[in-house]
Amino acid sequence: MAVDAAPRRTGTGTNQEGVRRHNLATMLRQVHLGGPTSRAELTAAMGLNRSTIGGLVTELTSLGLVTVGSAPAGPGGARGAGRPSPRVALAEAGPYVVAVDLGVDQVVVARVGLGGVVHERVRGPVDPDAEAWQVGAGIAALVRRVVRGAPAGAPLAGIGMSVPGLVRRSDGLVRLAPNLGWVDVSPGSIILAALGVDVPVSLANDADLGALAEHGRGVGVGIDDLIFVSGNVGVGAGVVAGGQRLEGSGGYAGEVGHMVFDPEGRDCHCGSRGCFETEVGAHAIAEAIGCPVDAVGSLGDVLDGYATPPPALHRIGHQLGEGLSGIVNAFNPQVVVLGGYFRALHRLVPGDIAAGVHARTLPAPLESLVLSQPGLGADSILLGAAEMALEPLLADPVAGLQASLAEASSRLAG
Amino acid sequence: MAVDAAPRRTGTGTNQEGVRRHNLATMLRQVHLGGPTSRAELTAAMGLNRSTIGGLVTELTSLGLVTVGSAPAGPGGARGAGRPSPRVALAEAGPYVVAVDLGVDQVVVARVGLGGVVHERVRGPVDPDAEAWQVGAGIAALVRRVVRGAPAGAPLAGIGMSVPGLVRRSDGLVRLAPNLGWVDVSPGSIILAALGVDVPVSLANDADLGALAEHGRGVGVGIDDLIFVSGNVGVGAGVVAGGQRLEGSGGYAGEVGHMVFDPEGRDCHCGSRGCFETEVGAHAIAEAIGCPVDAVGSLGDVLDGYATPPPALHRIGHQLGEGLSGIVNAFNPQVVVLGGYFRALHRLVPGDIAAGVHARTLPAPLESLVLSQPGLGADSILLGAAEMALEPLLADPVAGLQASLAEASSRLAG
Repeated sequence: MAVDAAPRRTGTGTNQEGVRRHNLATMLRQVHLGGPTSRAELTAAMGLNRSTIGGLVTELTSLGLVTVGSAPAGPGGARGAGRPSPRVALAEAGPYVVAVDLGVDQVVVARVGLGGVVHERVRGPVDPDAEAWQVGAGIAALVRRVVRGAPAGAPLAGIGMSVPGLVRRSDGLVRLAPNLGWVDVSPGSIILAALGVDVPVSLANDADLGALAEHGRGVGVGIDDLIFVSGNVGVGAGVVAGGQRLEGSGGYAGEVGHMVFDPEGRDCHCGSRGCFETEVGAHAIAEAIGCPVDAVGSLGDVLDGYATPPPALHRIGHQLGEGLSGIVNAFNPQVVVLGGYFRALHRLVPGDIAAGVHARTLPAPLESLVLSQPGLGADSILLGAAEMALEPLLADPVAGLQASLAEASSRLAG
Repeated sequence: MAVDAAPRRTGTGTNQEGVRRHNLATMLRQVHLGGPTSRAELTAAMGLNRSTIGGLVTELTSLGLVTVGSAPAGPGGARGAGRPSPRVALAEAGPYVVAVDLGVDQVVVARVGLGGVVHERVRGPVDPDAEAWQVGAGIAALVRRVVRGAPAGAPLAGIGMSVPGLVRRSDGLVRLAPNLGWVDVSPGSIILAALGVDVPVSLANDADLGALAEHGRGVGVGIDDLIFVSGNVGVGAGVVAGGQRLEGSGGYAGEVGHMVFDPEGRDCHCGSRGCFETEVGAHAIAEAIGCPVDAVGSLGDVLDGYATPPPALHRIGHQLGEGLSGIVNAFNPQVVVLGGYFRALHRLVPGDIAAGVHARTLPAPLESLVLSQPGLGADSILLGAAEMALEPLLADPVAGLQASLAEASSRLAG
């Protein structure tokens, strides 16, 4: 087998225009993630002089992205000599995105602004027997509903959608979503066709988006190496490594549900046998605790109903921990966030999970490891979808705000 | 368990001085990785105007890092009108590093210049019963030998060393190198104490460095997602993801030898059981092919002696492939490079390895996967150690060339 030769890229140079765009983006991201920030704090955080900071604030203001208020009365404002430093905050009627969290039995659609603020959210059922285009059309109707509530003139910067499956990063094609029965489906095209407007649509795997949101504004703030392990019928992981999303060559990284776990184990839907998912997936857990098959899609809710763990969960918790150890040895994260129905499992049998992790993790990566509940509760994936849709705007606020986006928003609302 | 709060970092701004340093670094890296390059090519690759490029070339020349020659006679030079564009090449007597590839039974030490050119290499045995300070003192003696041959005045930019074990990235402490019997050893301090001079020393895991070199100048050029899986008595992996080294929170990422492979399997030295390494580590292979225990450290040489595979290798090749599938599902690399004794195994039983991979890898990540021999032969890890030691100079050519480094080189040589 030969490796395809590709051009060598060592990066390009930078010039004044590149510097300006970089600085605008850095400032917007600071306020997006950190909340209202004084000019003095921005000056300190960005390492630039006051007049440069002032110019950047003016430009972001004229783009309709931020507003400048006065500093709140408080110890800092009252104490010092001189004027209080005005606070830079996100504009109220600024750009927004629509986030779509597609699960196996329901979909959540939300209008989310800069700062990760959920302005409105709606839910709909997902019929397991529906065709992909029917699911997509249903989502489009929910998208229209949340867009209708947006302030007049606010631009729709994009739609971000999570999928419980493998998503090709080059074009958002869903290669496989086993519990939806999808193979090579393009939900982006379906939704745009149903909406009839052209807005940027981005898609990614649900656990990848959970990791993104927990890193940006959940338990992973300031932590560069984090894994979000999601129990969502199947089992998958999203990885942030060195502060960056780990996507893999095609976008499929994090399919830890199909690690070898027991070569003599049960058959897996992937065609193999004894995968991690066959032991700690929703079907295995439902069977172990005697939960009906049609409740598998809402296993998290079922587990939330238990005050004390059914005995069978102890063994499953230990197995989850053993499988996590392989992930910890491979990625050496500082934090493993347990999402989906693993949230409830972690609440019920934390000791068994920890014991499983301790049994098989090397001492060095174990030392600093923290197993954690999501900082964003059940919203990690939804907010991750919003972050993904906001990313082009955050990376380049000038290019990200085309006039067409405000137009798309009013066409959809009208 | 609580997560330690850490300050939020969204990056700092850039100014003129930052731009100049970025551009100098980008140009040096271009010539370091791409070889002699004309000013016209640099202008195109870096996206800057000719006068800026000219200024950067002048500055790198005055730092003693590059020289400017004339374009070689050739179709391009003869055909066009106007003068040929002069070629920018690395300076002959420029800075160099010492690379140390520490194995289980031998150590290779080399003097390596910019461009990854090995100017001199020496070898020494490693006594498995020696204390760490004795091993370090032996390495220091080899370092002196290669430094002695350096051109007068050439600065020693640093020492880079690979270790078959877990290395803490904050300070290079070797937490565990099971086959050397090391726990919490600091080879950097030992080597500097034996040398008696202060030069930068950096250490990392051997497979991590193999990945770095294969990505920079081996089969992984232009490929952003690559894994170097190394059989070096134990089994480990080095990961490049999204074009960056994946180090993990403490520096321990890639310990794939301790994934669960068979819960009922053999005891592993890590204290667990049925790890991947117990099936495809050097001890298991040696036992399967009847190779004496004292040859385990040079299993690659033993396997190189076979023209056709001993029958037992077919099963081991299949198991290697099955374990690799877990790595491929988790990381979705485009290329998996088989290093150490896996090079020989891949030559002998490529079909079995591929069959094992196909049996357990999901279709999407399998599609674009290539299993490959190292592009740098047996030198991947050594050249990776050199790249690591060169990195501060490549990241900031001005700061990386302190006067003290030339002094250290002459003190060591004298």
